[in-house]
Order: sequence, then C-alpha cells, then structure tokens
Amino acid sequence: MSMGGVSLPLLFFFLATISATSHGFSMDIRHLFLATIPATSHGFSMDIPHQIHLLRPKAGSRNNDVPGLSCLSWRLGVETNNVIGWATVPEKCADYVGHYMLGQQYRLDSEVVANEAILHAQSLTLAGDGKDIWVFDIDETSLCNLPYYAKNGFGVKPYNPTMFNEWVNTGKAPPLPESLKLYKKLLLLGIKIVFLTGRPEDQRNVTEANLKHAGFNTWEKLILKGSSHSGETAVVYKSSERKKLEMKGYRIIGNIGDQWSDLLGTNAGNRTFKLPDPMYYIG
Amino acid sequence: MSMGGVSLPLLFFFLATISATSHGFSMDIRHLFLATIPATSHGFSMDIPHQIHLLRPKAGSRNNDVPGLSCLSWRLGVETNNVIGWATVPEKCADYVGHYMLGQQYRLDSEVVANEAILHAQSLTLAGDGKDIWVFDIDETSLCNLPYYAKNGFGVKPYNPTMFNEWVNTGKAPPLPESLKLYKKLLLLGIKIVFLTGRPEDQRNVTEANLKHAGFNTWEKLILKGSSHSGETAVVYKSSERKKLEMKGYRIIGNIGDQWSDLLGTNAGNRTFKLPDPMYYIG
Repeated sequence: MSMGGVSLPLLFFFLATISATSHGFSMDIRHLFLATIPATSHGFSMDIPHQIHLLRPKAGSRNNDVPGLSCLSWRLGVETNNVIGWATVPEKCADYVGHYMLGQQYRLDSEVVANEAILHAQSLTLAGDGKDIWVFDIDETSLCNLPYYAKNGFGVKPYNPTMFNEWVNTGKAPPLPESLKLYKKLLLLGIKIVFLTGRPEDQRNVTEANLKHAGFNTWEKLILKGSSHSGETAVVYKSSERKKLEMKGYRIIGNIGDQWSDLLGTNAGNRTFKLPDPMYYIG
Repeated sequence: MSMGGVSLPLLFFFLATISATSHGFSMDIRHLFLATIPATSHGFSMDIPHQIHLLRPKAGSRNNDVPGLSCLSWRLGVETNNVIGWATVPEKCADYVGHYMLGQQYRLDSEVVANEAILHAQSLTLAGDGKDIWVFDIDETSLCNLPYYAKNGFGVKPYNPTMFNEWVNTGKAPPLPESLKLYKKLLLLGIKIVFLTGRPEDQRNVTEANLKHAGFNTWEKLILKGSSHSGETAVVYKSSERKKLEMKGYRIIGNIGDQWSDLLGTNAGNRTFKLPDPMYYIG
C-alpha cells in the first residue's frame, strides 16, 4: 500500500486505532467512523488534515502535473455504472480512495442515500400484511469491512479471498451507521428486512452473529449464496432470489446495495438505492 | 442567481465571453469550454481562480459551518439516481453547480464516460449489416445548453419553457465535445447513430441545423417527441421508440444520455452510459 505524504499521519492514526480496539468491534466502529469529527472539531486539523483538504485534487502550481486529479472522475464513473468490470482500484487513486473512505465524505454520501430511502419508505402506503420487505445487501451496505480494507490497500491490491474470509470469520465488521439508521426506521414503519448476500452458506453463523452484534437484531430472511448458485454472477443470483421472494407473495418496496449488481436484473424492487463503494467491483 | 464571492470573477468572465460571441456558436463553444485551460496555463490563476479551488468544499475554520459541503453528496446522489424527482437545484448549491459546469471537472467527468463508451464499442464484433446503432440523447448529451443555463442560474430557477425554447430556436447550442468525439469514433467503426430526444417535432428543423453546425453531420434517424407521446414520461416515450427500432431489426449496442430516464425502461441497449448533469432532472 503506497500512500502519499500528506495522508500518512491520518492513516497511521486510523490503523493504530483499529489495532488498539480489535478486541471489540463496537469500539472499532466508534473509533473508525467518528474519530475524524472530534479530531477536527478539537483543533487537530493541523496534525490530522481534514479529509476535505485530502479529497481536494492536488492542484499543482501552473503547468505542473496534477496527480490524482482524474480520481474524482474515475469514482463518479464507478458510482454511475459507467466504469465497470474493474479488478482493482487504479494505483494512483489509492490515496484518494483511502481518504474518501476514512474521511467524512463517504459518510455524508451514504447519508444522502439513506435519507432518500427513508423518505421513499415514509411516502408509501403499506398493506400491513407483513409482506412488505426491503432487501439489504450485507458487505459495504449493512456491514462495513473498512477495518479490513484500511489494512489491505483500499482495493488497490488484488482481492485475496483467504485473507478476506479470515476477516469475515472474525465477525467483527461494524455496521454502516447510515444503513443501520435506515434499517431501524423501516422496522418502525412495519417493513420487514431481507438480507441478500453473496457470502456463502458456510458463513451463515458468523454472519448472523455479526449482524446482531452490529445492531441488526431481526430479519425476515437471511439469504446466503448456496452452492446451487456457484458460478452465477451476482446479478443472476440476486435476481433469482428476489424472484423467489416475490413468488412467495413478498413485495420488495426497496432494495439497497453498494454494487449495481445488487440493483440491476429482474425483480429489483419498487425503488433501488446505490450506496457508494469505490473499493471493489462485483458484476 | 446568487453566486458566492470567490466565484464572481470567473462567472463574469464567462458571461462576458458568451455575450461577446453570441453571433457564432463555434466561437461560443471554443470560449465556453476552453477558456479555463489557457487562462490557467498562462498564469491567470491569481485573477481567475482555477476551478479546482472553486470546486473544493468551503472548509470553514474549526467548528464553523461549512456551507456548500453537502453539495458533493447531493450531486453524487443525483448522478447515481438516488435523488430523483427534484424540480430545481438546491439554492445553496447554485455556486457549486455553476463552478462544476464551467470548470474542468464536468469535462473530465464526461471524458471518462465517453472513453468507456469508446472502449465498449471497440470491444464489439459488429455484424456490418448497417443495423448496429447507438442511441444519443440530444440536450446535455449531444448538444450543450450551458450558454443558456449559465445565464439562467444553472438549474436553480424553475424551468421556463418559453425562455428555454427561445434559446433552442437560436440553433446555437455547441456540442458536448466528449460526445462529439464518441460520435466520430462510432461512425468510423461503422456504427450508425440514432438521435432520440424529448424535443418536440416542431423543433425538428432547428435541431437538425444545430446538430450539423455542431459537427454531428449524419445520422440514421432523428426521433423527436411526436404529439402522440404527449403526456408520457421520458422513460415511457423513449422505451417505446427504442422498441420500435429493435422491431425494425436494429441492434442498440450503446445508449448515452445525461438523464437516467434516457437509460432506464425497456430496450435500453447492450450497454448504457450516463453523462453528468447536475442542472435538471427529467423523470
């Protein structure tokens, strides 16, 4: 993981925080997500640069190269499903993506999505028969693997399934707080939750435990990828599982995920919501 | 139109440019789109702030409000189809959107989309029977109405059909250069172009003339919104027109537009490409 000069203090700060609190994921999330806010508001901005500065493209002096500039366009291209099928974050965008994820902007961007989802849910007239459901993806939607990715290059390194599964099996992934807020609002409205994930069946127990520890205490269904779907793309697998839900009489009134493959295909739901994820692509 | 302090010199510069060159759209586009680059590279950056500075969220000193900060999240929400159905740009984002559109970032973001589209087109094995087509939207995709919007608040003011149609009827809209580049590449590959627009039939002549003046010299079809589609949403109208194309044996191998309503619905094409547009929403 190669990070540019200005970014190192912030990253070391976060990595130290993650290590120091690895015995308790609820500490992890508080530190991981909230550290920037008190750090900035208490005047550490000279030592730990505010992520807004870090997100600013590095404008060189006149006629100089402006390294990292196109990372904004690359990220927009990814988020709008224009840039697809990529294996790793471009090397030059490692710094940019790291700061985006650990800084406030990722959280602010997620908040806009969650708030729109809440407004949508509140606008609906529900049948009240227990068949109104909302589909949640898990990784980078309900649970957040940032403690893993912050130690493993924010998507710049090729995906390492062994190491990633070791992380998953710790069951320590914190929630994405904005999704947890949406989840709680939906339950209050009487909408049931269905988790639909590409995680395999043999991670059912750890995923259940992790969801509950993270605050997702109840659900109608937790659908993991069974062996019968092996080799299928996420779009095909998730479409077929959503179709089964609708054939059982459920109405998918909302569907949220960090990948377009959570939201495309058939039976996508009344409305879909795309959370940001510049770290990896699943087709 | 309320624009913040730092932005005014740049905007006045652009507005003066537009007025001075309104007799010739080819001058308009050169000035409108390229003025920042020579201005910056020749050392005017002290007088005319580089748009990267302007795009930077206004980070206040500690604990201060950070006005405009959420405009980044709002724009991402719009571009990812999370924020929908809005009538006008939020007042607080007028400054942000204006600078985004007139600055380099809009062009860089458009370039990533066009380049991905070119890569897609080049990856295909074409039948060579003249039935491979690419669907182009017109406004903010092929032709650029920025000279109008720069004088009319960048989408902050409610849509004024009378004034907008007066602008359209001048026939002076420049091309979006990145789309023109894509268009030319597609023609070289033997792909035919179909323009599909929400502009009404009574703007056919001026639209044809404007397209040709802008460099879009040839097309297979130019489909405008006939009166039989009045009252239909863009998604319904465009889906039905694309269906007619496919029933005539055309294969839509690509589809590009600035609105999700250009790209959703049925018969959307082999792949779709979303250009940025934070100025207005069409459902």
